[in-house]
Amino acid sequence: MARRHEQHELTVADATDRLRLARAEGVGPVAYRRLIARYGSARAALEALPRLASAGGRTSPPTVPTVNEAERELHDIERRGARALFFGEPAYPPLLALLDDAPAEITVLGDLSALTDRSVALVGGRNASANGQRVAETLAADLAHSLVIVSGLARGIDAAAHAGALRSGRTVAAVAGGLDVPYPPEHADLQRRVAEAGAVVTEAPLGATPQARHFPRRNRIIAGLALGVIVVEAALRSGSLITARLAQDAGRELFAVPGSPLDPRSRGANDLIRQGAHLTETAQDVLDNLPDHPAREGLARDPLFARGNPGLSEAVRDWQEPPEGPPDLARARMQVLELLGNSPTAVDDIVRRCQFSAAAVAAVLLELELAGRVETLPGGRVALLSETAF
Amino acid sequence: MARRHEQHELTVADATDRLRLARAEGVGPVAYRRLIARYGSARAALEALPRLASAGGRTSPPTVPTVNEAERELHDIERRGARALFFGEPAYPPLLALLDDAPAEITVLGDLSALTDRSVALVGGRNASANGQRVAETLAADLAHSLVIVSGLARGIDAAAHAGALRSGRTVAAVAGGLDVPYPPEHADLQRRVAEAGAVVTEAPLGATPQARHFPRRNRIIAGLALGVIVVEAALRSGSLITARLAQDAGRELFAVPGSPLDPRSRGANDLIRQGAHLTETAQDVLDNLPDHPAREGLARDPLFARGNPGLSEAVRDWQEPPEGPPDLARARMQVLELLGNSPTAVDDIVRRCQFSAAAVAAVLLELELAGRVETLPGGRVALLSETAF
Repeated sequence: MARRHEQHELTVADATDRLRLARAEGVGPVAYRRLIARYGSARAALEALPRLASAGGRTSPPTVPTVNEAERELHDIERRGARALFFGEPAYPPLLALLDDAPAEITVLGDLSALTDRSVALVGGRNASANGQRVAETLAADLAHSLVIVSGLARGIDAAAHAGALRSGRTVAAVAGGLDVPYPPEHADLQRRVAEAGAVVTEAPLGATPQARHFPRRNRIIAGLALGVIVVEAALRSGSLITARLAQDAGRELFAVPGSPLDPRSRGANDLIRQGAHLTETAQDVLDNLPDHPAREGLARDPLFARGNPGLSEAVRDWQEPPEGPPDLARARMQVLELLGNSPTAVDDIVRRCQFSAAAVAAVLLELELAGRVETLPGGRVALLSETAF
Repeated sequence: MARRHEQHELTVADATDRLRLARAEGVGPVAYRRLIARYGSARAALEALPRLASAGGRTSPPTVPTVNEAERELHDIERRGARALFFGEPAYPPLLALLDDAPAEITVLGDLSALTDRSVALVGGRNASANGQRVAETLAADLAHSLVIVSGLARGIDAAAHAGALRSGRTVAAVAGGLDVPYPPEHADLQRRVAEAGAVVTEAPLGATPQARHFPRRNRIIAGLALGVIVVEAALRSGSLITARLAQDAGRELFAVPGSPLDPRSRGANDLIRQGAHLTETAQDVLDNLPDHPAREGLARDPLFARGNPGLSEAVRDWQEPPEGPPDLARARMQVLELLGNSPTAVDDIVRRCQFSAAAVAAVLLELELAGRVETLPGGRVALLSETAF
């Protein structure tokens, strides 16, 4: 396997361990970060994984890719001229890293600087009108003189945004499937041109066919890479509105292009304006309102990250060994499970309502997540995954 | 001449005097109110008029309609089934009366209650798109179930608003010319139907052909009658935006229907939304945001009406005899003229910068206005009318 190119590069062994951990059954982006923080390395975390999952109630050890499988994936990524970037590496896009659930690994084809330079996302409906596509293409072309344009390579507005940006600058496509599985298939050539003039990025392994449940996760990467999101022609309850909400949760600026009340494709964008998004007609509307950094308010919505709560933050983000011994942790697990429900609950609330330390709650939640019984959600919330008996 | 119908009705002689004063050369709406306040009656004001205009620098006495002319106009108004309403009469529309420059007289054909019940104005471009007209008509029809719809009888959006309102309720047309000169001519039948189902109102005398300069004055009546103004398809620098600005100055709520950036007819409405107007897609957006009273902030923009400034307010609105004698008033006149320019100046500033009482400044400004040398503008501002030698 070839040597990795970057400064501060990971050793091949460390990259392999990280990829195994990132692809391990039950290890989501949040658990990945907590495990690395708690055990100091991916290898140590992999060793602890079976024991933790068992403590959380899992009967069989979680499936983890073998060393050979992980090495082969890294090798295939390099062979395609792409790059695997892990959370915590210096080259990992810094705005994306601010997300609570930033991907443990992203595979990138193209120019890494397109992921770190000032950017704005432009998203919208797949069944876009000719006018909507024209607006998106013009906005993207005008903005690409000074910004990288991020979008999702979908039909309609996304494709128009990439095409407009390619006329005058750089663009990034965040896709839901593997880099070698362009979707939709007719955008294979567009994906190639985007990679040449900017970058294509995905959280999915090579060979993965995108499925419906992957798209919201792809949308958070679009929102996370950019300083702001522009919405053109989004119906109510559309994927573009999910991207907008994720962007707002992450403190990114929101822009929306208005449309006639007679066109249901404009309802979502009009609604965003009603809720405070910048009404956007031209590139200048974006340039005048795009900040240099994400807003602190966006980050502060997560109670775990809020100032004035250093104990929690330290315990859950940077990991702190719980002062409680094993028998106490068993009781803490029972109490936490009683406090959880199928609808999301703030970790903050659980800590407040139980008799154990924040560190103990964090330890128990991590075990339960690895056992597949609890799901960690953005915004410092958790939910029971199903009504399993325990 | 027939007896006038209303309770608290004016005597025929008083109505005649008021109409003569309202139609007198150089007597605008503000001067009309100040003269009545100062002299107690229209007749006493008419008697003082030549002397005041002469003190202001006028060489010949201002033209005033004769008693016969005024009586004939009132007679003609009644013969058409219409009604002359003077500022200060109980039946005068109370929201319109809140304007700094509320008309001294309005001629009304139709149901007077349509001018006092809860209403919203709907205005927009004459060269409206089919979609814009459809939006206006639907909005008006939906809103007319619970509100009176005010508009300007123009082609395009105005006509659609009246037509929509006629489907389900009442509507008011504020027109720029005389009641007997429908404009545009092809809307004669629409005007007749509006008068039957609501009211037609104008500041112009019978027989007056509307001219370009009359439309901004008509627009302030539209804004003044309603609790809010909805703008549909207004280009930048259009008459509808003037109506919107006047409405905002008067503390009325602003609503705007968004449109595509590709349609220049939507620029003005989109711009209003950017500045804080309620983005409006359906009647519910209006019903949810229409207040019960004009906002105090709107009225307070006029420094003369601002709280905490009772001396000025008393002097200029309710009239106070200046403590200065005639020689001092002559010096005050010189000083006020020096402080004035062709661009509008706040009366407040003039009072602050000269050595005379607020009452003296008000007296001098009234004389200068009656002499045709000074124009009083809404918002407590005045401007020199031309660079006449003095």
